[in-house]
Amino acid sequence: MIITNGSQQMLYMVTEAMCDEGDVVIVEDPTYFVYLGILQSRGIKGRGVRIEEDGLSLEHLEQVLESLKKSGEIKRLKMLYLVSYFQNPSGVTTSYEKKVGALKLLRKYEKAAGHPIFLLEDAAYRELRFKGEDVKSALSAKGFANRVIYAGTYSKPFATGTRVGFGILPDPVYTAVIRIKGNHDFGTSNLLQQLLVKALSSGRYEEHLTALQKRYAKKAKGMLVAMKQYFPAEVQWWEPLGGLYYWARVPQALKTGVKSKLFQKALAKDVLYVPGELCYANDPTRRKPENAMRISFGGGTEQNIQLGIERLGGVLREMLGK
Amino acid sequence: MIITNGSQQMLYMVTEAMCDEGDVVIVEDPTYFVYLGILQSRGIKGRGVRIEEDGLSLEHLEQVLESLKKSGEIKRLKMLYLVSYFQNPSGVTTSYEKKVGALKLLRKYEKAAGHPIFLLEDAAYRELRFKGEDVKSALSAKGFANRVIYAGTYSKPFATGTRVGFGILPDPVYTAVIRIKGNHDFGTSNLLQQLLVKALSSGRYEEHLTALQKRYAKKAKGMLVAMKQYFPAEVQWWEPLGGLYYWARVPQALKTGVKSKLFQKALAKDVLYVPGELCYANDPTRRKPENAMRISFGGGTEQNIQLGIERLGGVLREMLGK
Repeated sequence: MIITNGSQQMLYMVTEAMCDEGDVVIVEDPTYFVYLGILQSRGIKGRGVRIEEDGLSLEHLEQVLESLKKSGEIKRLKMLYLVSYFQNPSGVTTSYEKKVGALKLLRKYEKAAGHPIFLLEDAAYRELRFKGEDVKSALSAKGFANRVIYAGTYSKPFATGTRVGFGILPDPVYTAVIRIKGNHDFGTSNLLQQLLVKALSSGRYEEHLTALQKRYAKKAKGMLVAMKQYFPAEVQWWEPLGGLYYWARVPQALKTGVKSKLFQKALAKDVLYVPGELCYANDPTRRKPENAMRISFGGGTEQNIQLGIERLGGVLREMLGK
Repeated sequence: MIITNGSQQMLYMVTEAMCDEGDVVIVEDPTYFVYLGILQSRGIKGRGVRIEEDGLSLEHLEQVLESLKKSGEIKRLKMLYLVSYFQNPSGVTTSYEKKVGALKLLRKYEKAAGHPIFLLEDAAYRELRFKGEDVKSALSAKGFANRVIYAGTYSKPFATGTRVGFGILPDPVYTAVIRIKGNHDFGTSNLLQQLLVKALSSGRYEEHLTALQKRYAKKAKGMLVAMKQYFPAEVQWWEPLGGLYYWARVPQALKTGVKSKLFQKALAKDVLYVPGELCYANDPTRRKPENAMRISFGGGTEQNIQLGIERLGGVLREMLGK
């Protein structure tokens, strides 16, 4: 295990260790946009695989793998990056069965690739569940221990200001990443690690997490009620069982991007969402959907959440001519 | 200013931002060996410039610049990396006059280089002075503000477990590095920053630093007395005015490297020093000196420092046949 500055540093270092410029990483459509920034900064190509309500589409994953094989690009494919719990931005959780299915598919194409293809499981939101049972991580998949890289964090479930994350990595990846960590910053703050040890061993962590889960559950509920009340009927979303986000999709004709009227009008009313288009890799094999938005219930108060959704609903109605 | 995880992260990010594989960075002979690791990990070449008791040899710097110009390698020269206060490993401090002199020399060769050549001033030990007056940093050099990158830290003068450093960077470098920081880890722990703000504004930082300076002064003195007592007369060193290290040089015939008898014998007596050879860049234009060692008085108790020097002195006498 390697301790990092939030899980972000683990994602960066694993990508630095595993990928060269021009390599390919499969990501979800949509995916965590900061990870796309990492790929871009290192000249790595992202290929998108669609997601469904229970996570990654295995059918589409197989199609993408097959097409990479045909084009020869499979030789540059190094990883599948999966935000597996209450995904940022969609709120979707990938089922354990699908994780195992994805690992099997990746293995199937290793021969064509000529090297191992890893699953990088980003479990940043795992502890922020407020409904249902925990889903096993890909680490539990028998026979795949040497293909799974797991990135977790204490920032999200405990305190964003601590920025302590961790990674569980198979041997050769571990060796490469620990060396990179030494070069990058010579180790994560010992003070923060000690603080977390105390919080974890004293039970304060669990206590705080339970309170946090309740708080986010309440905010998620409040946002849901507000969306039902204020959003036009055409707007669609999935109900997340945890995490911090709703992923709202508006009719295709309506654009949500940074330059769109919708975004600008919302901003003028002090409402900020993450435009969906930022969450898609620059994958030339498909058009980026432009009609989604990530709406977060993490930071705002319940009152502000309701107010924000009311205002955003107003803008949506106006744009849809309702 | 950019806040980082110790100054190590600043050194790494600046180097990532400024240098491509195959580029050249001038370093001191000897220099901070962890920085050499950064260079090596990124395929960057180090060229060594000798140091004297008042720091970098400007004469040798000019020779190295001239030879880089002649070979055409000057086009790949991006920075001079200077550990300017109580240098790790030599304990040497570069005078302000020499810093200005170095900046002037670098500027002189910019035309041949075809781009700016920066001075990366690593001031990690600056606050750990226990004798004499502070030396101005290169930031004070008039007309060179756009060529100086300054890396400082609160780890060394306050608490090694906090790992909060900072960098002062001219505009274009700042922009590049802040982007890298975002990708690497999305920001340094806010909790640690708040803690430091409190320590600094309450005066606790100054209080602690003063105590620390006194403690290190005492240890340095203790080590000096022990070296005078137990080391053979042929061993040479400079007396540092701060920091954590002595840089001891033994007769050239005696090797201090990891595989040397001296090192192994010392280790067998639980005495660990940093072999000098680790502190020299892989610069093919000169042979690496193999007869130095970095001895630290930072971590040990006064009693252990005396005991360690006594044992090391014994091994040295044995090896020199005394």
